[in-house]
Amino acid sequence: MTDKKVIAKLTDLGENIAALIEKNKVPKIQVPQRGLSNIKFDKKTNLLRMGSKTSTRNFMNVAHSKKFMQTLLIASKCQELVANGKTASIRELYYQLKHTIAGTKENTFDDQSESDPLIVDLETMLSVLREELHLKADDKGKLIGNITIEDTGDVIDCSKLGRSGLAIPSIVEHYKFREVKADYALVIETGAMFDRLVEEKYPQKNNCLMIATSGQAARGIRRLVNRLATEVKMPVIMFTDGDPWGYYIYSVMKAGSMALAHESERLGTPSCKFVGMTMSDVDEYGLEKVTEGLKDVDKKRISELLQYPWFQKKEWRHQLRLMEEKGVRIEQQALASKSLEFVAEEYLPEKISSGNLLP
Amino acid sequence: MTDKKVIAKLTDLGENIAALIEKNKVPKIQVPQRGLSNIKFDKKTNLLRMGSKTSTRNFMNVAHSKKFMQTLLIASKCQELVANGKTASIRELYYQLKHTIAGTKENTFDDQSESDPLIVDLETMLSVLREELHLKADDKGKLIGNITIEDTGDVIDCSKLGRSGLAIPSIVEHYKFREVKADYALVIETGAMFDRLVEEKYPQKNNCLMIATSGQAARGIRRLVNRLATEVKMPVIMFTDGDPWGYYIYSVMKAGSMALAHESERLGTPSCKFVGMTMSDVDEYGLEKVTEGLKDVDKKRISELLQYPWFQKKEWRHQLRLMEEKGVRIEQQALASKSLEFVAEEYLPEKISSGNLLP
Repeated sequence: MTDKKVIAKLTDLGENIAALIEKNKVPKIQVPQRGLSNIKFDKKTNLLRMGSKTSTRNFMNVAHSKKFMQTLLIASKCQELVANGKTASIRELYYQLKHTIAGTKENTFDDQSESDPLIVDLETMLSVLREELHLKADDKGKLIGNITIEDTGDVIDCSKLGRSGLAIPSIVEHYKFREVKADYALVIETGAMFDRLVEEKYPQKNNCLMIATSGQAARGIRRLVNRLATEVKMPVIMFTDGDPWGYYIYSVMKAGSMALAHESERLGTPSCKFVGMTMSDVDEYGLEKVTEGLKDVDKKRISELLQYPWFQKKEWRHQLRLMEEKGVRIEQQALASKSLEFVAEEYLPEKISSGNLLP
Repeated sequence: MTDKKVIAKLTDLGENIAALIEKNKVPKIQVPQRGLSNIKFDKKTNLLRMGSKTSTRNFMNVAHSKKFMQTLLIASKCQELVANGKTASIRELYYQLKHTIAGTKENTFDDQSESDPLIVDLETMLSVLREELHLKADDKGKLIGNITIEDTGDVIDCSKLGRSGLAIPSIVEHYKFREVKADYALVIETGAMFDRLVEEKYPQKNNCLMIATSGQAARGIRRLVNRLATEVKMPVIMFTDGDPWGYYIYSVMKAGSMALAHESERLGTPSCKFVGMTMSDVDEYGLEKVTEGLKDVDKKRISELLQYPWFQKKEWRHQLRLMEEKGVRIEQQALASKSLEFVAEEYLPEKISSGNLLP
């Protein structure tokens, strides 16, 4: 979405309220509900989506007045940011808006926990991404491989970044994919596994991009993967630990998250596939000795995943059941028990070339 | 230290033990003590240092035998890594060494918590860095600015990396500084502040390097800063939140940490100075409204810092006392309450050009 379009949406919001006031009507706004009851899993697209339920925020209702005022303050500041070509972190936004209201002892905001959810309200009301409002979440992650990206005028050949790689910023809307030679993107849960594969020259030998998420993927990473999959049709393969946490990280990359269901289309990547670690790998590669026992918290998490509609595919139910049965989980790093090179020279090439992937 | 020298040290360790065995003497090794009682603050160099107390690890003492065996397994694997030009994460090392001892049901290692401290033992025994043993800690942090780094044959101009920056790996021993045009390095606690300064073109306008630590600095960052300060004599200025946690992050960058006192010389940067946030800034820049109240855990941490020998400089005692008195802390992002540009156009240039820095 262009900055111009975002400004138009924000202006519309303000003008509608101004019109109500001029007509002596109660100023109000409709905000989509974000509770679980308004989230649906769309099987056809394999994406979590927000339903159509909304709530009304009414300025003349004392329970709503403060939030109403705060929502408009945020909308107004976002309009200013976009118009000036500036971006702000959500923490900076809070500090920018925090002040004592003239003639009172009342603060506009007392805590960032008041502004953060209203940002999401604004995103859902206007169907714009936080990044399009020029707001930034935290950044995390790095990228290496055969792609050339234009970033703010600089042309960056990501295959020439040594063992370091490009730090992925929280906003990647401005990235232009100039030359994409890699055959696929391998998205990796741990930084240590990313480093291992860099050392083994995996991206060069397999002509792929690699992205490290370092745990749950930040929005910048999810948006980057989405853009690679949709704009340059790059196949995406994910590689996580073999535990319920790793599997959930994969599901967020693929189908989106509950908290950001309204943005699944732009943050999720339904074409994404999963290479490992699976519970079947444990037998297949003789890794029994390097598994770890499940803790209660792991078991609880497995039961939760088994309830989620987006974990109902038979392959995933099978893996989760197998995990329960065996009572173990397995880490990516456990492959080092075979040899340091094993993951790069056998495990990944074998599984990927034979299409031994989970949906 | 060259790989050859590290291998020689590891070989020495093995040969000394072999010699003891051949002479029918008890195999043993001397391990420096790492408790607080063996850590000293060296005022002259402004570095934390390890004292000279050691303990003996004796193979014939049943309380020591397993650790003795484990220490030698690690030493032997490190020798193999260095000889083969490979590096491993400390988690991979654990998995590489974990196996059932032939003819028993005993594992060499049952948990990574057994191998991690022995790696530190080996570092202190041999006076080598973990990185020189080809072992990797976690990575974190990014860099941007006017420096050209050679990394594994690739020549990276870090002033041409858009808004992304270079991801700093856990090992930076192999970096070669090819061209260093920046006048100083600004090391920043939060990724969001780094992003702000990138957006304001601070590195270009002030000809500096910027490094984000994202909280406590990882070893890779600390080693990089140390190398910049010692090898290319780059002045280093640090910018953290105004709270005991930010001040401690600074002190670790400058004087080293208690846990890694044996490596302070290679991880600490005594020439480092501190620009903010200070408690004096709160008055100076009228930031009272955007401070946050101290929690009990903050107050406790302030008392602890006031006890540390390396916080006895009068400037630091003054700031910590002021923090106690005011009962508030202040974040870097609070400067956004003036304007988004304020930090880049007034705060930092004013304080740095007038030398208004803490030691």
